[in-house]
Order: sequence, then C-alpha cells, then structure tokens
Amino acid sequence: MPSPLDPFRTRLESLPSSDSLSVDKATARDSVLTKPTGALGRLEELAIWMSGWQGKHPPSCDRPQIIVFAGNHGVCAQGVSAFPQEVTVQMVANFEAGGAAINQLATLFGASFSIHPLNLDNPTEDFTKTSAMSEIECAEALQFGWDAVSGDADILITGEMGIGNTTSAAALATALFGGSGIDWAGPGTGVPASGVQKKAAAIDCALTRHAEILSDPLKVLQHLGGREIAAVAGAIIAARHKNIPVLLDGFVVCAAAAVLFKFNPHALDHCVAAHVSAEPGHKKMLQHLGKEALLSLGMRLGEGSGAALALGIVKGAIAAHNGMASFADAGVSGETGE
Amino acid sequence: MPSPLDPFRTRLESLPSSDSLSVDKATARDSVLTKPTGALGRLEELAIWMSGWQGKHPPSCDRPQIIVFAGNHGVCAQGVSAFPQEVTVQMVANFEAGGAAINQLATLFGASFSIHPLNLDNPTEDFTKTSAMSEIECAEALQFGWDAVSGDADILITGEMGIGNTTSAAALATALFGGSGIDWAGPGTGVPASGVQKKAAAIDCALTRHAEILSDPLKVLQHLGGREIAAVAGAIIAARHKNIPVLLDGFVVCAAAAVLFKFNPHALDHCVAAHVSAEPGHKKMLQHLGKEALLSLGMRLGEGSGAALALGIVKGAIAAHNGMASFADAGVSGETGE
Repeated sequence: MPSPLDPFRTRLESLPSSDSLSVDKATARDSVLTKPTGALGRLEELAIWMSGWQGKHPPSCDRPQIIVFAGNHGVCAQGVSAFPQEVTVQMVANFEAGGAAINQLATLFGASFSIHPLNLDNPTEDFTKTSAMSEIECAEALQFGWDAVSGDADILITGEMGIGNTTSAAALATALFGGSGIDWAGPGTGVPASGVQKKAAAIDCALTRHAEILSDPLKVLQHLGGREIAAVAGAIIAARHKNIPVLLDGFVVCAAAAVLFKFNPHALDHCVAAHVSAEPGHKKMLQHLGKEALLSLGMRLGEGSGAALALGIVKGAIAAHNGMASFADAGVSGETGE
Repeated sequence: MPSPLDPFRTRLESLPSSDSLSVDKATARDSVLTKPTGALGRLEELAIWMSGWQGKHPPSCDRPQIIVFAGNHGVCAQGVSAFPQEVTVQMVANFEAGGAAINQLATLFGASFSIHPLNLDNPTEDFTKTSAMSEIECAEALQFGWDAVSGDADILITGEMGIGNTTSAAALATALFGGSGIDWAGPGTGVPASGVQKKAAAIDCALTRHAEILSDPLKVLQHLGGREIAAVAGAIIAARHKNIPVLLDGFVVCAAAAVLFKFNPHALDHCVAAHVSAEPGHKKMLQHLGKEALLSLGMRLGEGSGAALALGIVKGAIAAHNGMASFADAGVSGETGE
C-alpha cells in the first residue's frame, strides 16, 4: 500500500556521493601549503570534506543557511519540561524579533536565518497514548523541511525549538538505538531528577505501545517525533541532494539525523557533528552515528546554536585552505626528512 | 645585585585583578537572557570573564590583536627539527606577504596582525652548552613583547615561529614542572622517534648543565628559552597590566606562559587556553596550568593559529551576551520550577 512517506524512502535510497575529483584537488592543494603536513589537524579534513560535498574546488563557506523549526508536543501532558508549553510560541516571536542566541550567532557569521513555526496551536499527539503524527502529517513536515533549504546555501545548519522535544528526541534514540528511557532521557532545559524519571517513564510507555513499528525508522519518526524534528530530517536529506554540507547541532537535531542514519548508514556522510552538548544522551548518540564533535563547550540550548558557533571553525578551515601560500609560492624550504 | 630582569619581577608581583563590578553586571545580565540557566555553557563563562578582565560591561571582542614573534635557536645544532633553520626567516617573509595560516585567520576574524623577527641572524646560544640568552638579551626580548601590545586591543593573541622552539619549550616545561626530557619532548613540526630522542637528550643535558638556576622561573627562561618565547611572556604580562584578556595558543606559547605561572600562580588568571594541540606535552602543560582548552582539533602549527581560531568562540560568546533579549523584554515565560 503506498504511503505518503514513500518519497522520502526513495530519496534516502538514492543518495548522491561526495565528488572525488574535488576531494583530489583539495587534498593536493592541502599538501603544498606552508605548514608541516597535518599541522592544521581537523581544519585540513574539513576543507577537503567541504570541497567533496560541495562538488567544487576551492570550497566556500560564504553563504551559510540557518533554519530553525518550532513544534509543540502532546507529551508535555506528562510533565516532562521545566518550561510551560506557551514558551514555544513566545520564543518564535523572540526569534522573529532577533532576540535569541541563534540570531546573534547568525549575524556574527553572516548566515541567513529563518524561523518556521509548525502548527504550534495544535501540538502533536501525546505519544504515550497514540502516534504523535499521522503519516500525512509526518510527510508534510518532512517536505516542509526539504523545501526550506535554499539551493544557494554552501553550508546548512538546522535548529529546533519546542518545549518537550528532548523527550521526543530521547524516545527516538531509545527506539532507534535500544536501551530503555532512562538510558536516553536527560535534564533537557533543566528538569530535576524527578522530571528525568517522568521523561523515562513516558518513553518506556511509548515504546511498549508502539512496539510493532520500531524496526521502521520513518515510522518511528512518525510515532515518536515532532513536526520540527521531521522538518529537520527533511532538510538534512534535501541538503544532501543539493550538494550542501551540514553542521549537525545537538541532541534533538541528532535524533532527527539518527532516523536517516538508521534508514541508510550513509545518509549522514555529508554531515559533521558541530558540537557535543551537555545533554548526556548526545555523546552516546554521536558514538552511534560515528561522529566526533568539533566543539565541546557544555552548551545545551538547541536553536542550532552549537552548530552556528562551529561556523567559525569551518570558515577558518576554508580561509586557511583557500588563502595560504604554497611552499613554492612563498619560497619556503620543505621538510628535510630528518 | 640588580638585574635587568628585575622590572619583570616587579610587574609579576603587582598584578591587577579582575573587576568585580563588571563581573557582577555581566553575571546579572547573563541570568535574565532568553535561555535556560547555563544553557550556553562555556560561552556564558567567557562573556563574564571577558567583562571582568576588560573592566567594563558590556564586554567587547571587536579589536583582537595578534602578534607573532619569531626567533632562531642555537639548539638546532643538536638536530632537533624536521626543517632547516632558514625556514624561520622564510616564514617571516610569508607572514609579511600574508601567506601563512595565521594571516587568513586574522583577516577572517578582523584581528590586527603583526610579525616581529627577533635578531634571526644571531640565534640564541645552544643551551646544551651555555645559557641561551644573557640576562640583558632576555630582558630586552621580554620588553619587546611588552611594548608590542596595543592598549587599544580588547583581546590579545600571541603566536610564535622558530625552527627548534618546541625543544626550547619542552626544556622550559621540564625545568618548571619536573620530569626528564622524554616526558615533554614531542614530534613538534614532525620529527620521527629518533628526533624526539635527540630533543630529550638535549633537554636532559641542559638541565644538568643549568641545575643551579632551575628554581628561578625568569632565569629558566633566560637559560633555556628563546627570544620569541620571552617576547610572548612579556606580551602576556603587558596584557594583564593593560586590562586585555589573552587567548593562549599551543605548546610553545604555554611554555612562555608557564614561566609567569611558576613565578606567580595568579599570573595567568587573565588567560584562557584557546586550544589543546596535538603536541603531546601540551595537554599535560595545561593540566599544570589549571586550564581547560576551548578547542581540541589536533592542530600543531603554532603562529597563534589555534588561539586565532578560538576568536570565533569568544566573539560568539560576546555577541550572545550583548545582543540577546531578556525574558522580560521578549515576553517569554521563565522556568516553572518543576
């Protein structure tokens, strides 16, 4: 029987690869720049990686796009957040007015920024009781994320806002990677231990209720995710098809990404983990995804803020790669082989 | 008997403190910004710390100054580097022409940049044979670094270039923190294991020769350091006296900083460790200095490159602190205390 999710299955099965010619060009240039071999560490890898996924050399990081999706969550009825649910819409107004952390970082690094509230007046269903979204709702949110990605961007950051969404993300992680709720639930915005227990209980309840769909990652997204999480997933797939590398933000964004990874283990090859957050499950999730974070600064805000901060690192990598002189150009002697 | 190093002893004994009023103002503002308490992790600490050491609120990161000092080292006679010594002067020309990694990072982050070759035609003495510098030479290099710091800067990065200077830095670390040469010698620009052994042997030889001065950090600098290392130390002290916070770069810069730390354990309170480099001794040195690095990206280039890259982090911290809306301004509800 055809499903509205099918187009995304197709998109996840037919993934473009990194461009090996651009990788070769970037690797060759890296090897002649005025520095000892490998002395710029991960900056060198980043420049080569950017070149491959952009399919061009030299690579660029001049047109970063930051997209934040916002959603509301029926599971908030289970008392899983330190903040009331109306904060989601209030924060959307703050994003629109330019007052949030992500606005300042977007301006600092010259990134375009947009905020997309997704039907905030109608939260997803409480996934302890039923599926969070219908197939059509989930597909619409995926498509919304897909459509939000500009073909003109040279790097993408997706962020999210949604009171209750670390519980949804932890539920996704539990469903996709195993364990029980307490293995993945964390303090989120700052709930005390009793709140973490409530999150874990809600997750365990949901996994029992939805046991029959746990082997299908897109169904897991539909049953346990949120609209903003599905939109993040859709945007990440879109970036792949549009030759745009992605900086992954924190726990919630990586839960969305994990859905794609479980569907196709190569689905995140165009993504770098920008940071590891203070949310305890994030480190573990990155291990499952096989990603080593660029930054570890104890951040746990979401909004794409950790990924936006890593723009400075990627811009530095590209600036060094594109702007440095070669040994020959600069008349600098090479290694003696001593 | 008066020594040309005495003025620096005085400067290290009378260190200005962080401004508590500015710290209080920054802490108060941080607590009302539209984010859960602590959700920006180290960015919040950085903004408050910058405010305190700049002695103003709001803090700024608009006028970063990057100063690179270059020196040549007599200990190169011991075969301690993978590159010939003429590379120091060649790289100075590369810095002047804008072709080095640090030039690209300075441009990217809007930092002023200057390169200062220090008597490259006359390397320091081979410290396995005699003291690297006379007291006057060392004092002149310290003063050179002091004078190079602009009172107009709002954050300082010192970098260094000097074939052979990781051996000098490892010798300083061994003298200041104990152990033997092999505990602190590393591959530097990329010497093989046999080169590391030569470095360790040179250090052990030097420590035996100079055993009588090892308890005096400034004498250690004079006997085992280099001109660029002394200049870095002088610049770091100058920054303290001029209300300028400092981003510490890698192994060589931290060896210069360690001299100050051993003289006065509060001498580096105005410094943040920007990164931990791939040079194995650097991590250990940061532990001795009680510093946790902002970045860990496998870099090992020197030139101030790791610290320059961290400018993006500090700029992000300041942008968020200064630009975000408060809960009251944005009409966002606070935590429920759940």
